[in-house]
Amino acid sequence: MPAKTKDITKLVKPSVRKLKAYSVDETPVRIKLDAMENPFPLPEEVRTEISEVVRNARINRYPDPSAKELTRSIAGLWGLDPEQMVLGNGSDELIQTIILAFGGPVLTPSPSFAMYEITARALSQKVFTVPLKKNFVLNADAIIKKARQVKARVIFLACPNNPTGNRFSNFDVLNVLDFTRAVVVIDEAYFSFSGKSFMPVLKDYPNMIILRTLSKIGFAGLRVGVLTAAPEVIDELNKIRLPYNINMLSQAAAVAALKRRDVLDQQISLLISGRERLYNALSRTKGITAYPSETNFILFRTTTDSTDIYNKLKQAGILIKNLNRPGPLRNCLRVTVGTPEENSEFLKALKSILDTD
Amino acid sequence: MPAKTKDITKLVKPSVRKLKAYSVDETPVRIKLDAMENPFPLPEEVRTEISEVVRNARINRYPDPSAKELTRSIAGLWGLDPEQMVLGNGSDELIQTIILAFGGPVLTPSPSFAMYEITARALSQKVFTVPLKKNFVLNADAIIKKARQVKARVIFLACPNNPTGNRFSNFDVLNVLDFTRAVVVIDEAYFSFSGKSFMPVLKDYPNMIILRTLSKIGFAGLRVGVLTAAPEVIDELNKIRLPYNINMLSQAAAVAALKRRDVLDQQISLLISGRERLYNALSRTKGITAYPSETNFILFRTTTDSTDIYNKLKQAGILIKNLNRPGPLRNCLRVTVGTPEENSEFLKALKSILDTD
Repeated sequence: MPAKTKDITKLVKPSVRKLKAYSVDETPVRIKLDAMENPFPLPEEVRTEISEVVRNARINRYPDPSAKELTRSIAGLWGLDPEQMVLGNGSDELIQTIILAFGGPVLTPSPSFAMYEITARALSQKVFTVPLKKNFVLNADAIIKKARQVKARVIFLACPNNPTGNRFSNFDVLNVLDFTRAVVVIDEAYFSFSGKSFMPVLKDYPNMIILRTLSKIGFAGLRVGVLTAAPEVIDELNKIRLPYNINMLSQAAAVAALKRRDVLDQQISLLISGRERLYNALSRTKGITAYPSETNFILFRTTTDSTDIYNKLKQAGILIKNLNRPGPLRNCLRVTVGTPEENSEFLKALKSILDTD
Repeated sequence: MPAKTKDITKLVKPSVRKLKAYSVDETPVRIKLDAMENPFPLPEEVRTEISEVVRNARINRYPDPSAKELTRSIAGLWGLDPEQMVLGNGSDELIQTIILAFGGPVLTPSPSFAMYEITARALSQKVFTVPLKKNFVLNADAIIKKARQVKARVIFLACPNNPTGNRFSNFDVLNVLDFTRAVVVIDEAYFSFSGKSFMPVLKDYPNMIILRTLSKIGFAGLRVGVLTAAPEVIDELNKIRLPYNINMLSQAAAVAALKRRDVLDQQISLLISGRERLYNALSRTKGITAYPSETNFILFRTTTDSTDIYNKLKQAGILIKNLNRPGPLRNCLRVTVGTPEENSEFLKALKSILDTD
C-alpha cells in the first residue's frame, strides 16, 4: 500500500512524540527581565566596529569550521587553553553534544536549568533528578548514590545554579567529581557574576567538563557557548559537532566586541551592584523572601500567589519569570537584574501590587 | 575509587569512539572551487544595508526563537507556507533533527552527500547505502527493496545529487515515496541551479520532507537551512529543535539580503551559464569525461590519476574536491562553478597539467 495513506507522526520515535515543544514567552513588553540578558547596549563605537567587520565578511563563503579567531579571543578573555575548547551554537548545542557523546541516563539536581532535562528527553535519554536540600544546597551524597544506582553517564551541575541563584560549595561539587563514574558537567553560565570557577581544578579531573557562554555577558543574540575539557574529550565531542556550527557573523562580531574587555567589565560591575541593591530592596519588602544570588538574577518567594503578582507585573509592562509550581519553587519568581532604571521600576511596580493586595 | 584515575574516553559511546571527526580542507588558496559556494560578493549597497541592520541589532537580547521574519522572507522567495517550515543552523542541523526525530536505520544512495551518513553515525544510527546505477541514475527498485528489508526509517535523496550533479527522475523518486514506509527526505540544496522541485507534490505525500539551503545561493556564512513538510511533521521536529538555533545576525542579514531578489537571480543565471561553458570545455578536453550537471558544480573523471591532478591544481593555487576512491568515483574530481575568470583559470591550469603529463 502506498505510503501516502498513512500517518507520518506514527513514524516519529515514541519518546519524541510524547514531548512538548519548548515554549518561549514572546509577549512584547516595555521592561524585559525574564531571560538573564545583559540589559546594556554596546557603546556606539563598538557597534560601529561590529557593523564594519560584518560589512567586510564574505558571507558567500562557509565560516571557519573551527572558529579559530573567536576561540583564541575567548581563551584570552577567560585564560583558557584553545586546545581544550569547543564552541557551540549556544550552550544548548553543547549540552546536546555532550549527551550525544556519552549517552544517558542523565542526572541533575532539581530545581536546575530546564534545558538539561528537555535536551536529554529530546535525545530519548532517561533523566533522573535529585532534590536540592534546604536553601537550595546541593545534596552531594544523594547525587553520588543516585548516580551509582541508575548508572548515570552524565551529571549536570549548574554553578551558580539557575533558577536558584546560589553557587554550590566547592566541597560538595568536588565530592561528586571524586565519587562518581559519570562525566560531570559544571555549567558556569553565570561565572562572571560570581567570580568563582572550577577551572583551576579542571586539570585534576579528566571526567569534568566546564560550560560557559557569551549569552549572559551581553551577546545572547550571537549564540556562542563555550566548552572546556581535557583534550581527549574535545576530540570525541568534535566528532559529533556539526562542522560549521558557528556562523560567520557571530564569529566576526564576537571577536570585535570581546576586544573591549573594559566595556564588558564595567557592565558586569554595574550588574553586580544592581543585583545587590535589588536583593537588599527585596529582602526589606514585606511578603517577600529573597534568596542570595551569585548570578545576574534573583529568585524570590511571595507569601501570596506569585502567579497573580507575575500577571499584574506583566500588565504593567514588566516581564519576569514565574516559577510557581508545587514543591520547592512554590510561589517563586525570578527577576533578571536590569538597568538601574529598570530595577527601580520593577521594585516600584512590585511594591504597588503587594500594597494593593 | 575516585574518578580522577580513569580514562574518560571509555565513557564515550562506542559508536562515537570509533568515528573520525569530519575534516575540512582549510588550505588557503587563490581560487577556491571546492565547496559549492557562490563566488560573487554582494553589491556594495546590499553590504551597506546588512551592516546597518547589524549595527541596530540588539545582540544583548536572545534572537527570535521562531525566526518569524526570516521564515516569511524565505517563504516569499520560494513560495512556501511559513506554517510548514523549520529553519536550521545549516541543513546539517536539520539532517540531525530529522534523524533524532525518526531514528534509524538511515538509507541513502551511494555516492551521495556525505553528511547523511556522517550524521547518522554520530547519532549512533545504522546506515545502509544502495549503489546508483550507470550514469548515477537512482535505483528506485533497489532502494524500495532495501528499505523494506532493513526497516529503514529515513531515506535521504539529494535531488540534484551531490557529488554527481544529476537530478534523479521524478518517476524514480515518486516511486520511492509511494512504495516505502520510511520518511523520504528530498534534499533540494541545488534547486536554484536546476529549477525543478518536488515542492508541488509535497501536499500529496505526508511522509515527504524537503530540504533547501541559503548556502549555495550566496549565504554559506550565515548557516541557514530550510525544511518544509506537513504541519504535523513540523510540530514534531520543533520539539527537538534547539529554541534559539538561528542567531540574531544571520536572521537580520538574510532578511536584508533576500530583499534583493534581482541580485540573487542575476548571480544564479551567471552561475548556470558558467556551468554550461565549463561543462562544454571539460567535455571537449582529451582525457576527461564530464558528467551533466543541474547544480553549481561539475563532476568529471580523468583517465590518469585524479589525485595527482588535484595536487598539481592545488600547487597552482586552485582548490577543487578530489573524490578519488575505489568504485564509481574512481579518478573523479568535482569543481564548483566560480566566476568567469576563475573558471577560465581553472580550465587553463587543468589543460596545462594534462598536457604536461
